Amino acid sequence: MNLLTNIPADLPTELTETLAQSRNVRIERIISHGHASPDGFWYDQDQREWVLLLAGAARLRIEDRTVELLPGDYIDIPAHAQHRVDWTTPDEPTVWLAVFFE
Amino acid sequence: MNLLTNIPADLPTELTETLAQSRNVRIERIISHGHASPDGFWYDQDQREWVLLLAGAARLRIEDRTVELLPGDYIDIPAHAQHRVDWTTPDEPTVWLAVFFE
Repeated sequence: MNLLTNIPADLPTELTETLAQSRNVRIERIISHGHASPDGFWYDQDQREWVLLLAGAARLRIEDRTVELLPGDYIDIPAHAQHRVDWTTPDEPTVWLAVFFE
Repeated sequence: MNLLTNIPADLPTELTETLAQSRNVRIERIISHGHASPDGFWYDQDQREWVLLLAGAARLRIEDRTVELLPGDYIDIPAHAQHRVDWTTPDEPTVWLAVFFE
């Protein structure tokens, strides 16, 4: 199976697929295409999230930091660190790998 | 931090770095450059391993299956499924992301 194929041409909303899961861990592929978090929305998660950008480009906010991500860039978001996606490139799909764990 | 940079030009043995770790999970970057498992050697791990090939090319054996991996390909190896790396391309570094969990 390949993370960089089967990317829908038309993506009205973000697409999230679970690739592997156990009691402690969930591995997801997330595809964005110009999507961002709604104005004023912040994620606040019980689990730690390790996220890798595989294709495209994105800008995250994590508490008071702004982080630009390009392919190969990864970041470790602690549980309950408030974060949001400010921007993903409209030029191509942005493909994320996210590992949620404790 | 970026998974596709800081790749040593000279790699006498495989290079493994832990990117994130908790009680239940370990996320590693592994870089091979033409390396394979020693003849007759098989991994037999207590943890499940979800592995994604990010760059290069590889051929794994998992019990009686042979699996060819190219960038974006991933595979979920159950705990105690015997496996080995039969081949990685000598032409460029092969970069793996491995998530070990239970």
